[in-house]
Amino acid sequence: MPNARVSYDEDEDKLGNSPHPRNGLAHAAKKLPEHGWENSTIEYLVDGLALLDSNNFPSRCGVGEREARVVCELVRKRHYGFAHGIGRSGNLTEAQPKAAGSTIMANLTICLVLDLLREMGIRSCKKALLVPLATGMSVMMVLSALKASRPDARYVLWSRIDQKSCFKSIVTAGLIPVVIDTVPAEERGDPMLGTNVQAFRDKVEELGAANVCCILSTTSCFAPRTCDQIAQLADLCRCKEIPHVVNNAYGLQSSYLTHQIEQAGRLGRVDAFVQSTDKNLLVPVGGAIIAGFDSAIIDQIAALYPGRASSSQSLDVLMTLLSLGKTGFQKLVAERKQLHQHLLEQLASVAKQYGESVISGRNPISAALTLRSFGDNAQMIGSMLQRRGVSGCRVVTGRETKTIAEHTFGAWGSHSSDGEHVGPYLTASAALGVTRGEIDTFAKKLQQVLKEQKVGEGENSELNNQIK
Amino acid sequence: MPNARVSYDEDEDKLGNSPHPRNGLAHAAKKLPEHGWENSTIEYLVDGLALLDSNNFPSRCGVGEREARVVCELVRKRHYGFAHGIGRSGNLTEAQPKAAGSTIMANLTICLVLDLLREMGIRSCKKALLVPLATGMSVMMVLSALKASRPDARYVLWSRIDQKSCFKSIVTAGLIPVVIDTVPAEERGDPMLGTNVQAFRDKVEELGAANVCCILSTTSCFAPRTCDQIAQLADLCRCKEIPHVVNNAYGLQSSYLTHQIEQAGRLGRVDAFVQSTDKNLLVPVGGAIIAGFDSAIIDQIAALYPGRASSSQSLDVLMTLLSLGKTGFQKLVAERKQLHQHLLEQLASVAKQYGESVISGRNPISAALTLRSFGDNAQMIGSMLQRRGVSGCRVVTGRETKTIAEHTFGAWGSHSSDGEHVGPYLTASAALGVTRGEIDTFAKKLQQVLKEQKVGEGENSELNNQIK
Amino acid sequence: MPNARVSYDEDEDKLGNSPHPRNGLAHAAKKLPEHGWENSTIEYLVDGLALLDSNNFPSRCGVGEREARVVCELVRKRHYGFAHGIGRSGNLTEAQPKAAGSTIMANLTICLVLDLLREMGIRSCKKALLVPLATGMSVMMVLSALKASRPDARYVLWSRIDQKSCFKSIVTAGLIPVVIDTVPAEERGDPMLGTNVQAFRDKVEELGAANVCCILSTTSCFAPRTCDQIAQLADLCRCKEIPHVVNNAYGLQSSYLTHQIEQAGRLGRVDAFVQSTDKNLLVPVGGAIIAGFDSAIIDQIAALYPGRASSSQSLDVLMTLLSLGKTGFQKLVAERKQLHQHLLEQLASVAKQYGESVISGRNPISAALTLRSFGDNAQMIGSMLQRRGVSGCRVVTGRETKTIAEHTFGAWGSHSSDGEHVGPYLTASAALGVTRGEIDTFAKKLQQVLKEQKVGEGENSELNNQIK
Amino acid sequence: MPNARVSYDEDEDKLGNSPHPRNGLAHAAKKLPEHGWENSTIEYLVDGLALLDSNNFPSRCGVGEREARVVCELVRKRHYGFAHGIGRSGNLTEAQPKAAGSTIMANLTICLVLDLLREMGIRSCKKALLVPLATGMSVMMVLSALKASRPDARYVLWSRIDQKSCFKSIVTAGLIPVVIDTVPAEERGDPMLGTNVQAFRDKVEELGAANVCCILSTTSCFAPRTCDQIAQLADLCRCKEIPHVVNNAYGLQSSYLTHQIEQAGRLGRVDAFVQSTDKNLLVPVGGAIIAGFDSAIIDQIAALYPGRASSSQSLDVLMTLLSLGKTGFQKLVAERKQLHQHLLEQLASVAKQYGESVISGRNPISAALTLRSFGDNAQMIGSMLQRRGVSGCRVVTGRETKTIAEHTFGAWGSHSSDGEHVGPYLTASAALGVTRGEIDTFAKKLQQVLKEQKVGEGENSELNNQIK
Repeated sequence: MPNARVSYDEDEDKLGNSPHPRNGLAHAAKKLPEHGWENSTIEYLVDGLALLDSNNFPSRCGVGEREARVVCELVRKRHYGFAHGIGRSGNLTEAQPKAAGSTIMANLTICLVLDLLREMGIRSCKKALLVPLATGMSVMMVLSALKASRPDARYVLWSRIDQKSCFKSIVTAGLIPVVIDTVPAEERGDPMLGTNVQAFRDKVEELGAANVCCILSTTSCFAPRTCDQIAQLADLCRCKEIPHVVNNAYGLQSSYLTHQIEQAGRLGRVDAFVQSTDKNLLVPVGGAIIAGFDSAIIDQIAALYPGRASSSQSLDVLMTLLSLGKTGFQKLVAERKQLHQHLLEQLASVAKQYGESVISGRNPISAALTLRSFGDNAQMIGSMLQRRGVSGCRVVTGRETKTIAEHTFGAWGSHSSDGEHVGPYLTASAALGVTRGEIDTFAKKLQQVLKEQKVGEGENSELNNQIK
Repeated sequence: MPNARVSYDEDEDKLGNSPHPRNGLAHAAKKLPEHGWENSTIEYLVDGLALLDSNNFPSRCGVGEREARVVCELVRKRHYGFAHGIGRSGNLTEAQPKAAGSTIMANLTICLVLDLLREMGIRSCKKALLVPLATGMSVMMVLSALKASRPDARYVLWSRIDQKSCFKSIVTAGLIPVVIDTVPAEERGDPMLGTNVQAFRDKVEELGAANVCCILSTTSCFAPRTCDQIAQLADLCRCKEIPHVVNNAYGLQSSYLTHQIEQAGRLGRVDAFVQSTDKNLLVPVGGAIIAGFDSAIIDQIAALYPGRASSSQSLDVLMTLLSLGKTGFQKLVAERKQLHQHLLEQLASVAKQYGESVISGRNPISAALTLRSFGDNAQMIGSMLQRRGVSGCRVVTGRETKTIAEHTFGAWGSHSSDGEHVGPYLTASAALGVTRGEIDTFAKKLQQVLKEQKVGEGENSELNNQIK
Repeated sequence: MPNARVSYDEDEDKLGNSPHPRNGLAHAAKKLPEHGWENSTIEYLVDGLALLDSNNFPSRCGVGEREARVVCELVRKRHYGFAHGIGRSGNLTEAQPKAAGSTIMANLTICLVLDLLREMGIRSCKKALLVPLATGMSVMMVLSALKASRPDARYVLWSRIDQKSCFKSIVTAGLIPVVIDTVPAEERGDPMLGTNVQAFRDKVEELGAANVCCILSTTSCFAPRTCDQIAQLADLCRCKEIPHVVNNAYGLQSSYLTHQIEQAGRLGRVDAFVQSTDKNLLVPVGGAIIAGFDSAIIDQIAALYPGRASSSQSLDVLMTLLSLGKTGFQKLVAERKQLHQHLLEQLASVAKQYGESVISGRNPISAALTLRSFGDNAQMIGSMLQRRGVSGCRVVTGRETKTIAEHTFGAWGSHSSDGEHVGPYLTASAALGVTRGEIDTFAKKLQQVLKEQKVGEGENSELNNQIK
Repeated sequence: MPNARVSYDEDEDKLGNSPHPRNGLAHAAKKLPEHGWENSTIEYLVDGLALLDSNNFPSRCGVGEREARVVCELVRKRHYGFAHGIGRSGNLTEAQPKAAGSTIMANLTICLVLDLLREMGIRSCKKALLVPLATGMSVMMVLSALKASRPDARYVLWSRIDQKSCFKSIVTAGLIPVVIDTVPAEERGDPMLGTNVQAFRDKVEELGAANVCCILSTTSCFAPRTCDQIAQLADLCRCKEIPHVVNNAYGLQSSYLTHQIEQAGRLGRVDAFVQSTDKNLLVPVGGAIIAGFDSAIIDQIAALYPGRASSSQSLDVLMTLLSLGKTGFQKLVAERKQLHQHLLEQLASVAKQYGESVISGRNPISAALTLRSFGDNAQMIGSMLQRRGVSGCRVVTGRETKTIAEHTFGAWGSHSSDGEHVGPYLTASAALGVTRGEIDTFAKKLQQVLKEQKVGEGENSELNNQIK
C-alpha cells in the first residue's frame, strides 16, 4: 500500500528517489540515490529490512540460538531491531541465513559505498568492504591478510608519517616496520615533506623483495607532509611484485587524493586502500572502508575475519548515504574545497602580519603556518588556542622524541627526522564538515593569541617596563 | 534541579537507585545498581554524558578535527550524540581529551561489567575490557598480544570444539593451531566428550613449553561436548609457564561455568577469558568482554589496539546493565537455569517415546537428543525443523568433513574425530533470553517432525502399503 | 519484499499477527490483533502510513500550504512524520485528502477502539470517536452537541460526584448544572453513597423534560461513592425523551462498569458515554473516547468540532493497542481485578487492627478506609502519606466547602452534602497499571503512619508523660 | 558534572546558550535563546524535566492514581516520559503537584512563546496561553469565555472570510454569527476585498452593543481578501465596550500582521488574538496560542478549561523554539518574506504572458492570479495542478454555494457575496517553511497547465484543426 505514492509524480522523479523499500532497494542496490531521501523514508526502509531478520519474527522459536535477543528496549530501538550483526563464522561478507534483513542491509551499504568511491574518482575500484573497525585496526587486518599469503615476508616499508595508530597497526599485525624518512620537496615554492622514492627502491634491494610483506603509503596527512608519491611507489610494487597498501584515512573527501589512488591503481600496483567512515562519511568513529582494484584480494581480507561483526557501522553509513544522496555528498565535498581555500586565505593574512609563511602545496586538506618568529613561545600557542576552544590544531616544534613499540622517532610530529627543516609551525585543516564559522573563529582567536604572545615576549624583554 | 527528587524517599531507596547522573555516576562508578533504572533515567544520564564531548559543545571550533561531525540526524540521535568512539591512537582505554563524556561512559561501562563478572562468580577477576569486536576477533587480539610477548612461540594448543570462528582466530593471529581431540567421558551415565588433559601434557612435552604460545580452552559449547577441564589445563599452564586463554563465549550466563573459571584462575593460570556481549548481556552482536586475573596482561591487550574504536557496544552494554540492575540480571540467569531444566524434561519425554536418550551431563546450557533410530533420515530432521521456524537447532550426523585454513576436520560438528561415539543427534539449548514458549513450541514441532519421519520410514518399508 | 516472512509459519499464526502493514491493515481494520505486535512491526506500520501523507512526499510542492512543515527534526521524529493532524475543517472524522496516512491511521485506531469497547463488554456499542481532548473537555463537547439540537433545554441534571472538571464541563458548555445529591445506600452491609433516582424523577417533573438538556451520570468514582444507577436513569431518560450522557472516565477497565453501560444502553437511553484514554489505555493524558449506541449522535458530535485536531492521541492509542493485542489488554484487566482484591485484603487487615472498616461495595476500583478513631488527626494522615511518596490517596474529612462557578458544595470531597454519613476516611484505588509492589508499599507506609498518629495522639493525651 | 562545559568558553557565549538544564532554565525562563540549541542539549533538558514528574520516580506508590502509567515503551519514549499532561482539574495553567516537570515544561514554553510574540512585534502583549487545541477550537474557547462573562450577548459580528472552521467555532460556542460582507478596496491599484467597517458600526447600532458578544476579525487570509481593518474595529470595540477577538491564524509569521495587532491593542480594544502553532511555529497540527494585552482576560480563558490537557503540543513548541533560537526564527521569517516576493515575481511573469493580473496588495503571505481569460476552464486548472503534485493552491470561480450550520454563503471561496468582483482566480501563498524550490516547481507546472488549457481551448474552438 505505501507504494501508492510512487506513481504520484512519476514524470518528475525519473532519477528514482522512490520512497518504497521495494523500489528503493531495486534502485539503490545499484547506485546512490541522486538526491537525498527524507528521514521518514529512510526509517521505513530500515524498519522493513529489520523485520526480515528472524529475531523479529513473531513466531520465532530459537532453541539453539544464543544471540540476537535484545533485552533493553532502548538498545533495540537505537539499532532499529537489528541484532544479528553481519557476516558468519566463516566470513565477513557471507549471508547470515537467520538474518536476511541484516544481510541485505550490509550488502546494500557496500553497493552504495562502492558507487561513492567511483563517483569520487576511483573509477576502477572493483570491490569494497565496510568493516566495523577503525582505520588502524583495518590496516592491521589488511596487513594480516597479506602476511598470510606471504608467510616469509616480514617487513613493511613505510613512508614516515607521525600518526601513532598507523605505525602500531604494523606491529600489531606481527610485522616489522621499516621507516623510510621523508625528504624535503619544494612545491610551488613551499617547503613540503614528501616521499623518498629512491630510498624505497634501495631498501627493497637491501632486504630483498621477497622479504617485504608490503609497502604502506599514505595520502591524507597534516601539512607540511604531503601525499605520498603513491603512483611511483605503485610502480615500484608492480615491478618488484610487492603488495601495496594505501592508508587513505580521510582522503575520500578530496578528489585530488582519490585521483592519486586511481592513477596508482591503474598504472601500478595497489592491493588495498583503507579509509575511515567517520572522517569521510561523517558518522561516529568505528568503521572503515577497505577497497581495491582486484576483488580476489578484498575477498581474502573478508575471509580472514573470524566470526560475525557489528552491523552498527553499516547502518550508520547506509542512513547517511541515503540521507545525503549523490548530490548531497558532492555538495559537502565542494564546500569543503572552498573552505580549505578560505582557510588558506585567513592563514595567509595572519602570516603576512607576522612575517611568517603558509605551507600547503600538494596538501588539499591541511595547511601549516610557520611560527619561526615566536621562538620558544611557539609551544604555548597551541595550548592557548586549546583553552580558547580551538581543538585539533597542533603546534609542532620538532624537538620531541617518541618511542612506539621500541622504535624511537626523533622530531616527533614533524614527519621527518630533521625537525629543523620547517621550524616550529602550527597546522590546521579544513576537513569534511568544517564550517565557515569555525574557520573564522579560529582566525580571530589565532590573531588574539599571536598578539598576546608578541606582547608577552615584549614583557620579558628589556622594553618590559615600557609596556603596560 | 533534577536532583530534587533524589531526596524524595531516601529512606526507602538505600541502595542508591539515584536518578541523577551526578549521583548515579558516583554510585555506579563502583557497582551495578541493585535494581534496574527506568529508561528515562538512563537516557538522561546518557544524554548528559554526551554533552561533555567536545563535538556537542555549542562553541566548538575544530579546525584540526577530521572526525566526530555527524551529518545525518538519525545517526546522531541513535548514538545519543556520541561520535568520538573510545580510546586514543595509543590505547583502547586511554582517555580521549576531546571526548570526556565518551571516556566516562566507556569507563563506567567497564566498572559495571567488572562488577557483573564478580557477581556472577568470578570473584577474583581483576580487570575487564569491553572491545567492539565479536568473540572471534577478540580471541585473535588476545592471541596477538600473547604472541608479541612470546615472539618465538608459534603453537596454540586447542581442545577441539567444532565452531569455526574460534579456530580461525588462531590462524588470523598468525599462529599455528594444534588440535587436541576430545575424549569420551562418562558423566552421570551420559556419553559426553571432554578434554584429553593427558594429550595436552604430552603435546607440551613434544613441542617444548617455550614454543607454545598458549593453550586455548573453551567453556560454553553444544552438548555432547562439555566444558573443558579448565582447572586442570590451568594447572598445566601454571607448571609449564604457558599462557592460558579461555573462550567463555556464552558462559557468563551460567554460574557453573563461571565457577570453573574462578577455580582455574585461583589455582592455576588463566591469562584472559573472553565472552561475547550479545550472548551474555543480550545486546546486538559485535562486542566482547576480555577479562583476567592480572591487570597487567589485560592492559597489554588494550595497548595493542591500534587507534580508536566504536563506542556503540559500550553504550549498548551500559544501557542494558543499568536497565536490568543486579537483580534484573540475576532474575534472567535464574529463569534460564529453570528453562534449561524444562528443556531437558521436554527432550526426555520425546526420547522416551522413541527409545532415544538425552545427553547433557556437565553442560549447563545445551542438551543433545540421540537420533540413532532414525538412521539416514536424521539429517532431514534438522531442515524440517528449520522450515517450521525452529532456528539454531542442529542435527549432527558425524559424517561431514570440513577444511578450515588448510586444516581438515573429520566428523565435523561432532567435536571429535570419532563421529560414531554418539551417533546422529540433535542439539538444542536454553540460552539467556530463551522463553518457555519457545521451548514448548520446539517440543511440539519436534514431536510432529519425528512422527512424520517415522511414518515416512514406514512408507519406504515393506509395511508401506499397510500404512496410509 | 518485507512480506516474505508473512508466509514464514503461516499454519502457526492463524490469528493474523501479520507484520506487514498491508496485511496488518487488512486484518486490523476489523479487529484488535489477538496477540500484541513487536515494537519493530508497529513502527514499520506507522512509518509506512506516515509516508502516505503529502508532507512526506519527496516531490511535494505546497504553495498553498500553511501547515505540516515540521522544522525541528526531534519533533518530526517523535511524531513519526505525521503532521497533518486528523479531521478537516468541517468534521473530526472527515478524510484529509492531503494526508491519506493520517486519515487511515486515525480510522484504524477508531476500529481498534470500537473492537476493544465491545470486547470489554459494551457489545451493542455502534460507534466511537477518539478525540484529542481530555475527559472534561470531551464531556463539554458532548453537552454542546446535545445543546445544539435542544437549544431551549438549559439544565443538566447531575448526580453529585466531587470531581471538579466534570462539573466545570457543564458550565463551560453554557449550561446550568442541577446537582442531585447522593443518598446513603447499604450494600453488602457497606455504607455507600448512591444515586437518588427518585430525586431525578422529581426534578425532571419540576423543570419539565423539555427544559432538561440531559442527565449526566457517572460510573467510575472513589469509594464510598458507587457507580450511578445508570440503568434506572437510562430508563427515566427513555421515558421522558431526555438525552443521557455517561461519564465513564476510567470505567473501561472494569467489566462490572462496562456491563452497567451495556445494560443501560440496551434497555434504556444512553446517548453517549465518555472515557479517558490515559486512564483506560495507559497513554499520556490528553485524549478521550466518545462512544454510543447510535451512530447518528456520535456523528453529530464529530461534526460539531471546528477544524482539525491533533493526531498525537490517536497514534499513542494505536501503538498501545497493537502492542498489547487483545490478550495483552485482557491480561492487564484481569491483573487489575486481582490487585483490587489484594488492596481490599490489605486494607481490611489494617482496619481490623484499628477498629475501622473498609467500604467498597459496588465500587470495583476504589475502596475507602474509615478513620473515625483518629478524629481531628485524620487530615494529617493524608499529607503524611504524601510525604512518604504515596500519591493519589486522599483523606476526606467531610468538613470542607468548595465553590465552583458560583455553585457551593458543602462537605466537598464526600460526594454528599451530608459529610457525616461516613465520617473521616481515606480512599485508595487499584486502577489499571497499578502494581502489587505499589499496594504492598502503600499498606506498609499506611501502617507506619497510623501507628505514628496513634502514638502522637497519646503524646497529646494525659498519658503523654508515660509514653516516650 | 555536565555543567563542566558551561565555563568552556564563557567569554564567547554571553548570550546564554547554556547547555545545562539548570542554567538553561534560569536563562530560558525569561527569553528565547539567542541562537538555537543542539538537539542533544534539548533532549537533555527535556529528559531532565520529565524525571521531575512523579510517574518517573523509581519509588512511586500511586495507589490513588488512575493516570500517567504508560504501558507501551514506544509511546513513553516519544513523549520523553511525560504523561501527566498540563493543568489541573481547575485550570489549564495551574501547577500539577504530581508533575513538577510537566508544569515547569509548560510554563517555560509559555515564557518562550510570550517572548516570541513580543520579538515578532506585539510588544505590548501581556500574557499567552498554549492550548492543545487547533485554531478553530481555540477561538471557540475564547468565545465561550467571553460569553460566560456576557451571558445575554448572543451575537458575534464577523467580517466574512471563507474558511469553515472559523465560522463553525462561533456556532459551536452556542453563539449566533452575524456575517458582515467584505467590500472591494483598491490598494496599490489592486482590487482587494477588505473590511466594511461602516457595516460593523451599523450592525452594532442595530443589535445594540450589549447584545454583541464580540467582534471576530481576521488577519491572515488568502488574497484577494486582505487583513481586516483591525485597528478600526478595535477602536469601535473600545468605544462601544464590545470584546474583540482577532483570528491571527498564521499571522505570527508576518511582521506586517503583528504590527496591525500591536496597533489595535494599543489604540483600541483587543481581548484576545489566536494563532496556530503548526502554521507559525512549524510543528504538527493541534495547538494554538491564545494571547492578549490584559492578563485577566487570558486567565479567564484558562480557568474555563475543564480538566487537564495534553502536554504534547507544549513539548513540540518548546523543542522547536529551543532548536531555532531567536535568530533561527527570524531567519525563517526573513526568508519567507523574500520567498513571497519571489512568488509575486513568478506570478507576475505568468500573468503578463496570459494577459492576467496578480492581486496581492496588503496581503503579505498570499497572492491571487486572475484567470479571467480561461473562462469555464478555470476550474480545471486547480485539479490539473493538484494532479501534478501542487497542493494547497486553489481556484475560486465565485459560483459555488455552501451551507454551514444553516447559514448559506453565496460565491463560497471568494470571501464576498459578490463573486464577480475579481472573477475566477487562483491563489497561492508563501507561508513559513515554503522553499524556493517549491515556488519554482509551482511556476513551472502552472505554466504547463495554463499552456495545456489554452491549447485545449483551441482544440474545442473553430481553430481546432489548425493547431496541432
